[in-house]
Amino acid sequence: MAKVITQLERANAMVINQLAQAGVATVHEAQGRGGLLHPRLRPIYAGARIAGSAVTVSVPPGDNWMMHVAIEQLQAGDLLIVAPTSECTDGYFGDLLATSAQARGCRGLVIDAGVRDVRDLTQMNFPVWSRAIHAQGTVKETLGSVNVPVVCGAALVNPGDVVIADDDGVCVVPRLDAARVLAKAQAREAGEAEKRERLAKGELGLDIYAMRERLAAKGLQYV
Amino acid sequence: MAKVITQLERANAMVINQLAQAGVATVHEAQGRGGLLHPRLRPIYAGARIAGSAVTVSVPPGDNWMMHVAIEQLQAGDLLIVAPTSECTDGYFGDLLATSAQARGCRGLVIDAGVRDVRDLTQMNFPVWSRAIHAQGTVKETLGSVNVPVVCGAALVNPGDVVIADDDGVCVVPRLDAARVLAKAQAREAGEAEKRERLAKGELGLDIYAMRERLAAKGLQYV
Amino acid sequence: MAKVITQLERANAMVINQLAQAGVATVHEAQGRGGLLHPRLRPIYAGARIAGSAVTVSVPPGDNWMMHVAIEQLQAGDLLIVAPTSECTDGYFGDLLATSAQARGCRGLVIDAGVRDVRDLTQMNFPVWSRAIHAQGTVKETLGSVNVPVVCGAALVNPGDVVIADDDGVCVVPRLDAARVLAKAQAREAGEAEKRERLAKGELGLDIYAMRERLAAKGLQYV
Amino acid sequence: MAKVITQLERANAMVINQLAQAGVATVHEAQGRGGLLHPRLRPIYAGARIAGSAVTVSVPPGDNWMMHVAIEQLQAGDLLIVAPTSECTDGYFGDLLATSAQARGCRGLVIDAGVRDVRDLTQMNFPVWSRAIHAQGTVKETLGSVNVPVVCGAALVNPGDVVIADDDGVCVVPRLDAARVLAKAQAREAGEAEKRERLAKGELGLDIYAMRERLAAKGLQYV
Amino acid sequence: MAKVITQLERANAMVINQLAQAGVATVHEAQGRGGLLHPRLRPIYAGARIAGSAVTVSVPPGDNWMMHVAIEQLQAGDLLIVAPTSECTDGYFGDLLATSAQARGCRGLVIDAGVRDVRDLTQMNFPVWSRAIHAQGTVKETLGSVNVPVVCGAALVNPGDVVIADDDGVCVVPRLDAARVLAKAQAREAGEAEKRERLAKGELGLDIYAMRERLAAKGLQYV
Amino acid sequence: MAKVITQLERANAMVINQLAQAGVATVHEAQGRGGLLHPRLRPIYAGARIAGSAVTVSVPPGDNWMMHVAIEQLQAGDLLIVAPTSECTDGYFGDLLATSAQARGCRGLVIDAGVRDVRDLTQMNFPVWSRAIHAQGTVKETLGSVNVPVVCGAALVNPGDVVIADDDGVCVVPRLDAARVLAKAQAREAGEAEKRERLAKGELGLDIYAMRERLAAKGLQYV
Repeated sequence: MAKVITQLERANAMVINQLAQAGVATVHEAQGRGGLLHPRLRPIYAGARIAGSAVTVSVPPGDNWMMHVAIEQLQAGDLLIVAPTSECTDGYFGDLLATSAQARGCRGLVIDAGVRDVRDLTQMNFPVWSRAIHAQGTVKETLGSVNVPVVCGAALVNPGDVVIADDDGVCVVPRLDAARVLAKAQAREAGEAEKRERLAKGELGLDIYAMRERLAAKGLQYV
Repeated sequence: MAKVITQLERANAMVINQLAQAGVATVHEAQGRGGLLHPRLRPIYAGARIAGSAVTVSVPPGDNWMMHVAIEQLQAGDLLIVAPTSECTDGYFGDLLATSAQARGCRGLVIDAGVRDVRDLTQMNFPVWSRAIHAQGTVKETLGSVNVPVVCGAALVNPGDVVIADDDGVCVVPRLDAARVLAKAQAREAGEAEKRERLAKGELGLDIYAMRERLAAKGLQYV
Repeated sequence: MAKVITQLERANAMVINQLAQAGVATVHEAQGRGGLLHPRLRPIYAGARIAGSAVTVSVPPGDNWMMHVAIEQLQAGDLLIVAPTSECTDGYFGDLLATSAQARGCRGLVIDAGVRDVRDLTQMNFPVWSRAIHAQGTVKETLGSVNVPVVCGAALVNPGDVVIADDDGVCVVPRLDAARVLAKAQAREAGEAEKRERLAKGELGLDIYAMRERLAAKGLQYV
Repeated sequence: MAKVITQLERANAMVINQLAQAGVATVHEAQGRGGLLHPRLRPIYAGARIAGSAVTVSVPPGDNWMMHVAIEQLQAGDLLIVAPTSECTDGYFGDLLATSAQARGCRGLVIDAGVRDVRDLTQMNFPVWSRAIHAQGTVKETLGSVNVPVVCGAALVNPGDVVIADDDGVCVVPRLDAARVLAKAQAREAGEAEKRERLAKGELGLDIYAMRERLAAKGLQYV
Repeated sequence: MAKVITQLERANAMVINQLAQAGVATVHEAQGRGGLLHPRLRPIYAGARIAGSAVTVSVPPGDNWMMHVAIEQLQAGDLLIVAPTSECTDGYFGDLLATSAQARGCRGLVIDAGVRDVRDLTQMNFPVWSRAIHAQGTVKETLGSVNVPVVCGAALVNPGDVVIADDDGVCVVPRLDAARVLAKAQAREAGEAEKRERLAKGELGLDIYAMRERLAAKGLQYV
Repeated sequence: MAKVITQLERANAMVINQLAQAGVATVHEAQGRGGLLHPRLRPIYAGARIAGSAVTVSVPPGDNWMMHVAIEQLQAGDLLIVAPTSECTDGYFGDLLATSAQARGCRGLVIDAGVRDVRDLTQMNFPVWSRAIHAQGTVKETLGSVNVPVVCGAALVNPGDVVIADDDGVCVVPRLDAARVLAKAQAREAGEAEKRERLAKGELGLDIYAMRERLAAKGLQYV
């Protein structure tokens, strides 16, 4: 049952990078308000904004053996997406694994568990979104799987999906939807620029979006 | 039932600003250890210390329509105080709403739910105290109310109350108590300055506050 | 029942300082993956890395009277380790107590409850690991004990134990084990340096640690 | 600041009893989906369905002294509504206090903290809705207040308000609204009886409530 | 984007019923320790043990409109599996919806949110596994989808999958795996019967499973 | 480091049984409000009231191998006290292990993790206090220890300590204190009987405990 899928189809690299530019909130809206991972996943330092192809890892509680297996599957531009099979906050990942992942071009880690050596990771500029910062060590006794579908942060992530992560959290886009979602995200951004300018001058959203009539129709009363 | 109260009485502006200077912990003590919102409300960036008049917003879960309505009610020096009618961590507020609120002179947001675009908000210097950072989008389908009493962070906030927020959290002072509480806060600060100096020199609180006798009377034993 | 143990045996100062250098994750591993406090204890600012002798304080919920008693027991190089007798997030400690503790050479505070005045504490360079940041004030009515064994962050801490704290969390080392654990920690660090270099060059952990055979024996399949 | 308000206006006894009959869910709907306390408040045993006038108690963390003070203020038909000034799960209430409260005609307890002796309370048929079951004892050192407004379970409860509690949770109705809310609740119940019958025969809510057209207008697609 | 898939393939009815007999723990083990929903989903009353085909419902926070839509899709032997698009504990489901669902042969509800009218549901013998019991009402303003894949209780559930629920929680079996998993579950049960008898007579698992040698090889020491 | 201590000193059997009679709340008070485990540990069914000698088990997350080892160490009248080395809610224990433990005279299980097969355990009358009910299976790959000190539910439990558990939760009494604590508990119970009678007749605690004067001295005001 424990297995490693060694073939991974990835989305177009330029599309992935532009999704990072668009950011998590915009991409989430662009795919119909979908794809967000749970907000318990927080970055270990502020300011990172990345996207990459998901190399997924299903791990047992308290056992990080498969992290070593997963690193061999990484290519430049990939992200590690790690989900334990039952809730766990142990520190599966630290500076040695980060060194190894970074050497293979990995852009970062999203883990629904704990991470450690966060000072080193920050200095290495290796971003991590995790459920906890926890020094708790793990064992290497039980197998898991690499590049299988996982539920991470209450969202389904398939291997090769595009994962975007920034200060707002983490969002997944199915690989085959990436280009279409990017187009929507960019259209959304274009529309927002003009609105931002008008709002900055003091115009109201009530007027820009013509909400007053509908509010009244629903029964809103001004007293 | 959904309504907007358009008249809002506010406390004296100078009193409000001086309450910000005093800070959350001191103001909380000055009103008899009252008025704190729940510590789950945390700032999105460190270092902000503000106070303002509460424009309160009661919102349905997952629906931020009333935010647009509330912004029209803002005056310079106000704060938005937002409470969902049932628990929700969705991202009700982002950079566009912040641009609009800031254009009207709003000093910040306190929300017992989620916020997004936190990198932008940080760059705009628009402080937010929230329960979560979450990119999750909301709809605009259901009404709520503006400037009604709300329970936010487990504390009652009436419209026009003074809300103080800093790195220690958020505190509310009833509008009519503001001047009285400020006086007590300032007295407290004056008293602390001298004690700080004595403590810094190595004097003990046990002696400064004359606690030894009462400790012994209660039965404390040194072994 | 309420008591203050005034005699405290401490570990060797140089050993303590070198344990700080080793850091929480390494020390935890060096004592067989033991001694970590719960990851809910987080630093109020990033970058501190300290170790010291535990002056333990058992406090009632919402009552910080014993903090004053404990400060008298501090010597240079000590840490305050505070555990409430039932769960509480009140702000037991602020800038005045920090001023007093710092005047006695205390290096920091670990508290399974709340702390306040965090902006001041940061400016004072007085590090705190706490469960919450909360301005909630406390009373001085009920006794507790100083320098008794406490369970703090779900770990047993005896007075005089060495406590190490950094961005990864907090770890306790029994006083009598300190030298032995330090030796193991330093051996571990030495071993890691060489591995870090090999990993940075792109060698895989699978090969460095010779894991492939055991993985296959356990049944891992590459597809 | 610590005070006991000895005068308490109560709603009409028959109205209160009929609100109990209507139950929490119906009363909550009848007042525009308002008044619910947080669902963390759960009954210690199933099957109780009560209503009564709120005798409110604001208590310090870990201190149940004011419970004794509050019991003197109870009249037959009242409920105790207890809120600590900061989060606490200690067992403020057990079989002795219940014996005393029951002797005065108190119908039950709602407490945003802990309760103990739950086996005895169950045998006494004294219902409690609490945040926790916890044997943790409390002290009697610090004052609180009786019959002041409290925020309990994230809802505002004023002394004399009607509180309804059953297996679904707890709901508060402002004293002066009680008759009006009851009328709406009873109208709602009458309307539901006919619908329940039609639904039981297999008619669909889609048809009974004529939802199909509006669903289609919003864009729902059947595939 | 909001849609209702009206075609649903279901597993064999006898297989489904026998999976209920096997129970959640055994079925979970039989599919390689997979398929469990998060343990926050608890039954509203003890003793129910059911299985059925999943009619899945993706709902917005605080909006139960799609429940009515979903009920039309139910056939005898189905279960409703409901997941909000962001975390919510509102009471999406009560006695009227249960009456309607039961009239169509629905066996129960699994909902990663709240439920109400639990006394009525218990009397109707309509079992529910939910995250909360909460009377909080919902609106009918925003669309969702029926019979799309959902993540419920952190597990992926596809429409038509077999869901088993009992006092131990909830487990999902992919539709096409149902027969195979049942066979393994029954084999497992057969093996356990003999072991249970030997254990009841006082034989040790250490001996029955021949663990002593492997424990010693791993280094276990008896002192 | 993994070890089994095979020698266990136990408290007097009659003392243990009488501590069960006194119950958790009374025993906790009798030892100066100490010894309670965290209230997250709840019984899987109501009504059990037991005490026994602690056979402690330290287990890795997600690995129940040591449960088999621990069962061999059980004698009639013992309790299993199980603590994972990092937070875990997996189902370490089910009906087979319970059958084996019960065959050796074990009276119940206290586990700061999950349990499964709760319907079977209820029918067997084998009581369990746990943090979760969870069917999640575990592996048998990593060693732990038996009869070492553990922190379970945030309390220190030494092997051979007396553990009392009932509907109010779980309490630990150090082995050597058992007789002394029992005496205090029985004295406390005797005192309560008379007070219960007076309270039932309507006398107030304010008068029985002569609190009025001290309340007034502290400043309580009746309005």
